[in-house]
Amino acid sequence: MSLKLGVIGTGAIGQDHIRRCSQTLLGSQVVAVTDINLEQAAKVVAELKIAAEVYPDGHALIKAPEVEAVLVTSWGPSHEEFVLAAIAAGKPVFCEKPLAVTAAGCRKIVEAEVAHGKRLVQVGFMRPYDAGYRALKAVIDSGQIGEPLMLHCAHRNPRVGENYKTDMAITDTLIHELDVLRWLLADDYVSVQVVFPRKSSKALAHLKDPQVVLLETARGTRIDVEVFVNCQYGYDIQCEVVGETGIARLPEPSQVQLRSEAKLSNAILMDWKDRFIAAYDVELQAFIDGVRAGQVGGPSAWDGYAAAVAADACIEAQNSGQIVKVAQPPRPAFYG
Amino acid sequence: MSLKLGVIGTGAIGQDHIRRCSQTLLGSQVVAVTDINLEQAAKVVAELKIAAEVYPDGHALIKAPEVEAVLVTSWGPSHEEFVLAAIAAGKPVFCEKPLAVTAAGCRKIVEAEVAHGKRLVQVGFMRPYDAGYRALKAVIDSGQIGEPLMLHCAHRNPRVGENYKTDMAITDTLIHELDVLRWLLADDYVSVQVVFPRKSSKALAHLKDPQVVLLETARGTRIDVEVFVNCQYGYDIQCEVVGETGIARLPEPSQVQLRSEAKLSNAILMDWKDRFIAAYDVELQAFIDGVRAGQVGGPSAWDGYAAAVAADACIEAQNSGQIVKVAQPPRPAFYG
Amino acid sequence: MSLKLGVIGTGAIGQDHIRRCSQTLLGSQVVAVTDINLEQAAKVVAELKIAAEVYPDGHALIKAPEVEAVLVTSWGPSHEEFVLAAIAAGKPVFCEKPLAVTAAGCRKIVEAEVAHGKRLVQVGFMRPYDAGYRALKAVIDSGQIGEPLMLHCAHRNPRVGENYKTDMAITDTLIHELDVLRWLLADDYVSVQVVFPRKSSKALAHLKDPQVVLLETARGTRIDVEVFVNCQYGYDIQCEVVGETGIARLPEPSQVQLRSEAKLSNAILMDWKDRFIAAYDVELQAFIDGVRAGQVGGPSAWDGYAAAVAADACIEAQNSGQIVKVAQPPRPAFYG
Amino acid sequence: MSLKLGVIGTGAIGQDHIRRCSQTLLGSQVVAVTDINLEQAAKVVAELKIAAEVYPDGHALIKAPEVEAVLVTSWGPSHEEFVLAAIAAGKPVFCEKPLAVTAAGCRKIVEAEVAHGKRLVQVGFMRPYDAGYRALKAVIDSGQIGEPLMLHCAHRNPRVGENYKTDMAITDTLIHELDVLRWLLADDYVSVQVVFPRKSSKALAHLKDPQVVLLETARGTRIDVEVFVNCQYGYDIQCEVVGETGIARLPEPSQVQLRSEAKLSNAILMDWKDRFIAAYDVELQAFIDGVRAGQVGGPSAWDGYAAAVAADACIEAQNSGQIVKVAQPPRPAFYG
Repeated sequence: MSLKLGVIGTGAIGQDHIRRCSQTLLGSQVVAVTDINLEQAAKVVAELKIAAEVYPDGHALIKAPEVEAVLVTSWGPSHEEFVLAAIAAGKPVFCEKPLAVTAAGCRKIVEAEVAHGKRLVQVGFMRPYDAGYRALKAVIDSGQIGEPLMLHCAHRNPRVGENYKTDMAITDTLIHELDVLRWLLADDYVSVQVVFPRKSSKALAHLKDPQVVLLETARGTRIDVEVFVNCQYGYDIQCEVVGETGIARLPEPSQVQLRSEAKLSNAILMDWKDRFIAAYDVELQAFIDGVRAGQVGGPSAWDGYAAAVAADACIEAQNSGQIVKVAQPPRPAFYG
Repeated sequence: MSLKLGVIGTGAIGQDHIRRCSQTLLGSQVVAVTDINLEQAAKVVAELKIAAEVYPDGHALIKAPEVEAVLVTSWGPSHEEFVLAAIAAGKPVFCEKPLAVTAAGCRKIVEAEVAHGKRLVQVGFMRPYDAGYRALKAVIDSGQIGEPLMLHCAHRNPRVGENYKTDMAITDTLIHELDVLRWLLADDYVSVQVVFPRKSSKALAHLKDPQVVLLETARGTRIDVEVFVNCQYGYDIQCEVVGETGIARLPEPSQVQLRSEAKLSNAILMDWKDRFIAAYDVELQAFIDGVRAGQVGGPSAWDGYAAAVAADACIEAQNSGQIVKVAQPPRPAFYG
Repeated sequence: MSLKLGVIGTGAIGQDHIRRCSQTLLGSQVVAVTDINLEQAAKVVAELKIAAEVYPDGHALIKAPEVEAVLVTSWGPSHEEFVLAAIAAGKPVFCEKPLAVTAAGCRKIVEAEVAHGKRLVQVGFMRPYDAGYRALKAVIDSGQIGEPLMLHCAHRNPRVGENYKTDMAITDTLIHELDVLRWLLADDYVSVQVVFPRKSSKALAHLKDPQVVLLETARGTRIDVEVFVNCQYGYDIQCEVVGETGIARLPEPSQVQLRSEAKLSNAILMDWKDRFIAAYDVELQAFIDGVRAGQVGGPSAWDGYAAAVAADACIEAQNSGQIVKVAQPPRPAFYG
Repeated sequence: MSLKLGVIGTGAIGQDHIRRCSQTLLGSQVVAVTDINLEQAAKVVAELKIAAEVYPDGHALIKAPEVEAVLVTSWGPSHEEFVLAAIAAGKPVFCEKPLAVTAAGCRKIVEAEVAHGKRLVQVGFMRPYDAGYRALKAVIDSGQIGEPLMLHCAHRNPRVGENYKTDMAITDTLIHELDVLRWLLADDYVSVQVVFPRKSSKALAHLKDPQVVLLETARGTRIDVEVFVNCQYGYDIQCEVVGETGIARLPEPSQVQLRSEAKLSNAILMDWKDRFIAAYDVELQAFIDGVRAGQVGGPSAWDGYAAAVAADACIEAQNSGQIVKVAQPPRPAFYG
């Protein structure tokens, strides 16, 4: 039997996930939707031709007996409330990042889930489902390069709009590295520092761009992440792991090699949506399969909390220019 | 509603396709299976936990009213008979290669399908569904490299067993290039030649290995394909298209880049099954989607026939050492 | 003491070599020059500020007691005469390719040198002095890839002028591969075939371009060389050696890797002069050092003859479309 | 006329330079040598078969009328004394790094040279003469990647011996980056920080390895240099320049590409001597040519001083863990 899903939030990402469940993934059907704008929700149901009821709000949807699991794809500040409600109802919930807009909010979710006694929450960090990162982790875990000592990373976008502020380099951009590197290393951050290089003339006046974030982990691994959101040339994600005996590097996206116009070249993606498109499918399929198997996995509420704590420290480091300790409490045994 | 499939042949590839339809692809269910060994068919049904009836033979399965479309994954020499029966029953049929073991057999299928008046047959050539070949075709079709003038290709396997004979370099190995290069160029072969280089000491006594096959197309494009099935180092598929203004090369499979032991390296696959694994999914999903949409696409019976005709010419060229004309009749308008 | 050189022919290549000897290489000085145009010879002496006497003709220069060794950089059809004169005078001679414009002419030089009893002639094939080809040969000779079975090569120029005729694809372009591949494999050609792909629309009306030349060696190695002199995108020399256990590829020229404008790229050279520029220095230094050490080495008169014989067979193959045997006599013991 | 050189110090590097001047470079001859061990100096003269007089000490050599220019290749602590003596004698001097073992010593040399009124000193930093770095600088200077904002660099050695101490990561290893990056960017350092990642288990007990050095330049460019001298896998120099519109990366040394044993690989050098071997020739030829043309160029005494000041700051940063300002005075007009 298909898993019956309710989707809270029918904006761009909500529609993408509905489409995925209906047209690409196995084993689920969207039976309920809602949105702050109910007309829009109804329109999406009609356009995507799905047999889903429109509920008046998220809480009604969560309570509906026919809804077996919930996707939270609404406005960020509403995530906490709906995830807590899903936990209260004992229903598995996939929540787009951020899990909550504050570390305290994430912490509340962690506590509610621990109190419930069984994992219900998967956070929408998709990079651990990317084939490249998985291959990189497999190399690290194989011991081929020895213990990881340093990581050199970059997160580059061609350009950003006026709404993008300096702190969003952390909360919107670096947040993906904060999650995926913890997973890659199976380690936690203990301190952070942010350095501001000479500003690019391509960045808008109010934005400090690029930035370099330096992270230290509990095992002493040192990570540098270049965040550069007006790099012009492409959407480019780099991750190089320097181990005791060798170095492993995240694969470049596979491209046709061209010899033309005095260049030997491979295309670089310009649109971030193309970079991890397959990972979104794998991530959501994993949630569906996990729920059906009675075992939710993937990025946990604790992972969402840990990323939020690290992000808070990074923002403090942006402001102070100092090395800032990451005040993350020990991981509850519940999260293994 | 799911498409109800009947599968004839529950050997390795048959089981793979059943698993695909049950666990990975959307929109189909396997309701009927059969095999020359009925016990084995029953065992597969039990092991894969599918709700499928075991039919006494392929003809009974094809005629069963509940079967809406047929997968032919039986022993090669039986393909022709079952495909013809499916056409006679007016049911869409996906047939693993070869479509038939002789060009004459393929021709009969073409004629039956044309007489039926609507496409029913998709042949199991998976490379046109590979993301790399599709990207390469997109570059060619974009005009970025001008008209294609030459192709340099290679098809290399680490090693082959004792059963692999010199003509199988054509019928088992080159056959994939014979299909995919016609598709890539939208062109037909007019002559072939086979050259035997110095034999590798790693090849068994009875086998000529490597071989170089030279193909000429109707538009004058010249293709060289190195077939080397004891190359030792890996399963390696290469395709370079030299156009009037540039050159495009099939992407290498995406791999972690390593610096270790005095080498900067990327892994090369050793097992052919890993190389096009995603393409098998895409190919079969395309068949399912095509049937459900009332429009079977992909490699046609005509494509299967054209590959067979070219293969026959290559075998003649292996034996004669001469340049051999490819006696392919004009394509019926039916095949567009 | 410096080696005292006489240079016959003060055109572009002659001037380059004079400049090399005066400004870059160790152990030689140009003391004598001549040219069909004596005024031009005098002008070169003045411009390059060398203390060299202008001789009335090549024969006078060769006979001059102060001239210890000769560089022949005159018009191709005059090479044979001057090389023979140098041998007659017992003076070492470096001769730009071609050694002679006919195989018969080359043969005469071989016979004169053998009669003389000691090597005097080095032919100006520079690729065996290229660091990339030398590294490739070292890999082959190390046995890392087993015995060579096939070579896939390409010789591409951006474009050629009106004077470039179809046979020049052999005598001006392929001639470099004919020499360097013999050296690389330490093997001789036994048959050749030329295939004409669809013609590029960028080639002038009178020229067949591209061409594919197929060579067979005495040990059975099969070579395909793509000659494409209007490829537009760059001057590009490729050489891939397929051995029994692995494949080795000529290094690309070293270039800065760029990420810009949605491309990960390395520059490709446009001008052939840049590709082997270092090899010209090494080649001529080797001649100077060889003469001073009493042991002329490098490409021999026999190598020049062998290349000429193979080129003749290629031209016959261009015209006949047939597989043509290479009528090369056995190598005299003199040439080791 | 050849430039008459005197060489102070006939150890390994002294012998290399004598060999260079005698056998590879144009326009010089070594006429005088000396060493703390006079017997050894005499032995070198004999072995290298050069017509050079052995002087009792460096000062005598510098004063000898026949010596037109001096190479200082003695023990580091003696450099300052001999360079000052050469300046006092008004003779051009090429000094191996370090120019002096303290910044104060370098400063004295700078002052002596300024007082002399004309450049006499070239410091033996060879990387600015490396073809790869020169190509990288050409790309930066062309404006293709916009203004440089960040540099990501690495300096890795397979392993080091027991004598290598933690501060030598700065004075022996990073010193090359301290020089070449100033030259590459035409910029000066204003602050430094050193971070110690988790120590490699391959490093000896007394050594902190790897280290990450963070540099800030006057124009705000931020540089991270990984120094890892027990990386096991190879001698590997990396330099990536992130500009406003693109990224340029130092070329990898040119190598044969291999397909073998399930790997697509290029060799990585194991011995540092092979990495910049050509640059040593170019560097010393530049000194010879410069002296003969009356215009000493290349890395100046000021460059040697600036590297020493930055190195001092790095060592302070190693000890303090703090961000340390680089106390470099403004560049005298004399140094352009």
